[in-house]
Amino acid sequence: MRPMRLALAQINLTVGDLEGNTSLVLEYMERARQCGADVVAFPEMCLTGYPPEDLLLKPHFIARNRNEMERVVAHSQGLTAIVGFVESDGGDTYNAAAVAHHGKLAGVHRKAYLPNYGVFDEERYFKAGTESPVFLVNGIGIGINICEDIWYPVGPGLAQSMGGAELIIVINASPFNAGKLRFRERLVCTRAADYEAFVAYLNTVGGQDELVFDGGSLLSDPSGNLIARAGQFQEELLVVDIDADEVFRVSLHDPRSRRERSRGTALPEVTRVNLDGAPFTQPKPPLTPGIAPPLEPTAEVYHALVMGTRDYVHKNGFQKVVIGLSGGIDSSLVAAIAVDALGRESVMGVTMPSRYTSEASRRDAQLLAQNLGIEVIQVSIEEPFSGFLRALEGPFSSTQPGVAEENLQARSRANILLSLSNKFGWLVLTTGNKSELATGYATLAGDLSGGFAVIRDVPKTLAFELTRYRNQAAGQDIIPESVLTKPPSAELRPDQKDSDSLPPYEVLDPILKAYVEEDKSLAEIVTLGYDEATVSQVMRMVDRNEYKRRQGPVGIKITPRAFGRDRRMPIVNRYREC
Amino acid sequence: MRPMRLALAQINLTVGDLEGNTSLVLEYMERARQCGADVVAFPEMCLTGYPPEDLLLKPHFIARNRNEMERVVAHSQGLTAIVGFVESDGGDTYNAAAVAHHGKLAGVHRKAYLPNYGVFDEERYFKAGTESPVFLVNGIGIGINICEDIWYPVGPGLAQSMGGAELIIVINASPFNAGKLRFRERLVCTRAADYEAFVAYLNTVGGQDELVFDGGSLLSDPSGNLIARAGQFQEELLVVDIDADEVFRVSLHDPRSRRERSRGTALPEVTRVNLDGAPFTQPKPPLTPGIAPPLEPTAEVYHALVMGTRDYVHKNGFQKVVIGLSGGIDSSLVAAIAVDALGRESVMGVTMPSRYTSEASRRDAQLLAQNLGIEVIQVSIEEPFSGFLRALEGPFSSTQPGVAEENLQARSRANILLSLSNKFGWLVLTTGNKSELATGYATLAGDLSGGFAVIRDVPKTLAFELTRYRNQAAGQDIIPESVLTKPPSAELRPDQKDSDSLPPYEVLDPILKAYVEEDKSLAEIVTLGYDEATVSQVMRMVDRNEYKRRQGPVGIKITPRAFGRDRRMPIVNRYREC
Repeated sequence: MRPMRLALAQINLTVGDLEGNTSLVLEYMERARQCGADVVAFPEMCLTGYPPEDLLLKPHFIARNRNEMERVVAHSQGLTAIVGFVESDGGDTYNAAAVAHHGKLAGVHRKAYLPNYGVFDEERYFKAGTESPVFLVNGIGIGINICEDIWYPVGPGLAQSMGGAELIIVINASPFNAGKLRFRERLVCTRAADYEAFVAYLNTVGGQDELVFDGGSLLSDPSGNLIARAGQFQEELLVVDIDADEVFRVSLHDPRSRRERSRGTALPEVTRVNLDGAPFTQPKPPLTPGIAPPLEPTAEVYHALVMGTRDYVHKNGFQKVVIGLSGGIDSSLVAAIAVDALGRESVMGVTMPSRYTSEASRRDAQLLAQNLGIEVIQVSIEEPFSGFLRALEGPFSSTQPGVAEENLQARSRANILLSLSNKFGWLVLTTGNKSELATGYATLAGDLSGGFAVIRDVPKTLAFELTRYRNQAAGQDIIPESVLTKPPSAELRPDQKDSDSLPPYEVLDPILKAYVEEDKSLAEIVTLGYDEATVSQVMRMVDRNEYKRRQGPVGIKITPRAFGRDRRMPIVNRYREC
Repeated sequence: MRPMRLALAQINLTVGDLEGNTSLVLEYMERARQCGADVVAFPEMCLTGYPPEDLLLKPHFIARNRNEMERVVAHSQGLTAIVGFVESDGGDTYNAAAVAHHGKLAGVHRKAYLPNYGVFDEERYFKAGTESPVFLVNGIGIGINICEDIWYPVGPGLAQSMGGAELIIVINASPFNAGKLRFRERLVCTRAADYEAFVAYLNTVGGQDELVFDGGSLLSDPSGNLIARAGQFQEELLVVDIDADEVFRVSLHDPRSRRERSRGTALPEVTRVNLDGAPFTQPKPPLTPGIAPPLEPTAEVYHALVMGTRDYVHKNGFQKVVIGLSGGIDSSLVAAIAVDALGRESVMGVTMPSRYTSEASRRDAQLLAQNLGIEVIQVSIEEPFSGFLRALEGPFSSTQPGVAEENLQARSRANILLSLSNKFGWLVLTTGNKSELATGYATLAGDLSGGFAVIRDVPKTLAFELTRYRNQAAGQDIIPESVLTKPPSAELRPDQKDSDSLPPYEVLDPILKAYVEEDKSLAEIVTLGYDEATVSQVMRMVDRNEYKRRQGPVGIKITPRAFGRDRRMPIVNRYREC
């Protein structure tokens, strides 16, 4: 037996809050100590929060993060702590992990693979590390990876395991998208089996602008078996016991590393750093590790939206949000998410009926507010809407009513919500979904405008699923059944239906996924079984409306490719496939 | 004499318009031929336009750009043409230059240094090239650099010149900021003297979303003398004669390359590619190259704003713009720029007075419209504003009038402008300046909203300078003198002045430059001579208002660091220096 107790601190950090983040690290370090942990790991860049973006271009920000790192090191008596921070050295900066050991800085690992795709811009800030040290703690070899490092088959983990690492600790700030947890589990367990080493994957948790980090930290044994997992979307100190002797036992049964070593595969040199000091491991009662079950796909997205909303609101210092309730599915879903995120006292509903608002919509909005137990006020838009029509009588004379008159209503509603925000300090949650944002079926300075766009990455068909999920979870129709069954409508003119302007959502959403998320071509999308004219119409709508998407508030990424940092398209863009 | 006639095609391309861009290239190729040019160069990525951003993640986009490149090659009879395109090879893509020679593809140069800072994201898309070929045309050695390549002291130009290149052709898409032209000239002439070679620097021209490319292509001789320059902000075929014998003559007088060669400085191997076929150079009457004088600093910015506006409007297919005229300096300046960019028939002014609009403002707005010769309509906001106040009577009862009521006016104005846009297809030009955007002195879904933000990167003090410049250029007060002399006011409440909420602009703007553009610390800014409380107040305003900046339309970058792609700050951000 060569036992080690490892603690993974899956914690919720705040970008820029260097002191607050450090306090949280120190608190979890103390908890790890009390659990008898030998080693405790903290997330990637946990002192700065992730991603700090251009804060990384401020010299004093880097300096202060360094000071906080030193404070953490000074508090590491009786432990080995692995702490993500930004290292600066000779004018270069690194995404790095400090190895604090019993009050001293024992070493630093630098991230070797810098992601610069999707939402990531790490080449903008960092130099890549080239070393793959192995740290010996109580004689047990530990290699550190930082996030992207583990995704590469010939990443530092391979060199480290060939060089004697029995445990690879991967510290992450890995953003959520639906289904990613399972992908990570598969990857980590495969790497563990490849390396014939324990692999501990620690993820951060919490919301940051567009991103939600979902936690779900996990540990694989050297045979590739999942032996522990933390919950998703919650803070947790996952404490596990490992026996490093297991590594040698597995390697005797698995010829692969032996064979690789004898083939002399060229890998970077590995330095070994022996961490002196008292061997911490004392006899302690064994732990039974828990494997938190993963959330079901719809539940997972729902929880991501709840955490993303809660963190955006609270981390920006707001106490209360305001939502325009139309009686439709999007605003109903957003209200339910807001109540789950913030509590019903922190959510204010506003109904803003017009001459075109149906009785059913009024009833549904009231019923929803009642079911959620939120306060609701009514502000009619008739007065400002008529005011606009009168003001514009001159310029609009001899024109037919159309989209201008419709948008006046959407903008009057935005004006009312934003006025309430100005007056009472409530954050406006917008309620537009991804299908609308993609096609431009939304009004600039109208429903597009506000403080935070909760479901901007949720396709309409998924909004229906999420609503049904929420009702099922409650065991009752919190969101009235009629909201789910009536045909979607913006109610900006008599008898308007979304289907007047858009293909049915069951057709639209798969086309959007293929085009927006996967960059498939017209021909490729048609072979999925869609009508060419429809596909072509949808593609044009997407291309034409990039300018609108630039002007909405940020919202939570839940798909592999969200509008925002993730999909950077020019506005002036004459490229047309069709 | 080893003469060569070189043509630099400084042309205005459109992102995504592969066929249109190719047609323009072919047209300039023909013009170069008629000028008797041996070699003609086209800008970086001229077939795709720059930057195509995530269009580069579409396989068919890459394939079609390849087809267009082949079309250019097929049309290159009697010439050597250097043409920027996107090369794909074995699953990697490169920012590359095709060398088309007399109907054949003679070679490709790949950009070695990929910018991934500021507005640039090239590591997101491209692999860096590693070769530095020298192409022999009529026995004269030519090395190609692509933009960033020339900025590195040990870039490919050094290896190429040591390996026999007598002419380095740098093809660029180098975005404008004030003063950059002189910086480039200094750099290019220094490199030419270092290399002991001619260096031709070809820049593209035109507007693309946030960016304006300013042209100003230039040529230095091997002694570092500027011998030709194209105009700024205009298309031009700059044709120049060089004599490659000059290189040898200079090298006999300058010991530096001899010394470097004898020291054996490690540089990449250079391959030489001999371009076969007819020697093109025929005796022709000599040219006298012109050196276009650079624009004065204020004129330069003004021209950038004009070109950026014209291209955004036209490349997006709009015929006409609409501007809310308040009688203040910002909207007056934007209207003047719009008229210069589009012609007065394409600019519609709208005055939207309220109970707080002064008689002076009304008069100034009318006089401006008259001076510019643009049509102006008046739409009072009193009806919608009163409508909103009545609608909100309930929720606002027992509150004091404040920012909510002020913003209702700004949002009513935006609603009117956007309604006119919806009704008549006019693009709304917003009129906010950088000082306002930085401090959040602007209304979300109000003056922030619209189609294009002409002066969003122009500090208020520079807006004054630009206005004076425009009047001086006209030889009369196109923009009424009273606009320049009255104290700036938003006129949203009685007797309001900007200086009620903000420090004087002469104080504010230098603080903003130091903080926003240069990331200087509080202490550093105070040492520039500003009051600590003021600096601290300004820094907080900037930090707190990131969410607003995310929701405005794009506008033209004219400073070294604009809000937008150039400055990527988190919204959730608890970092405070003070």
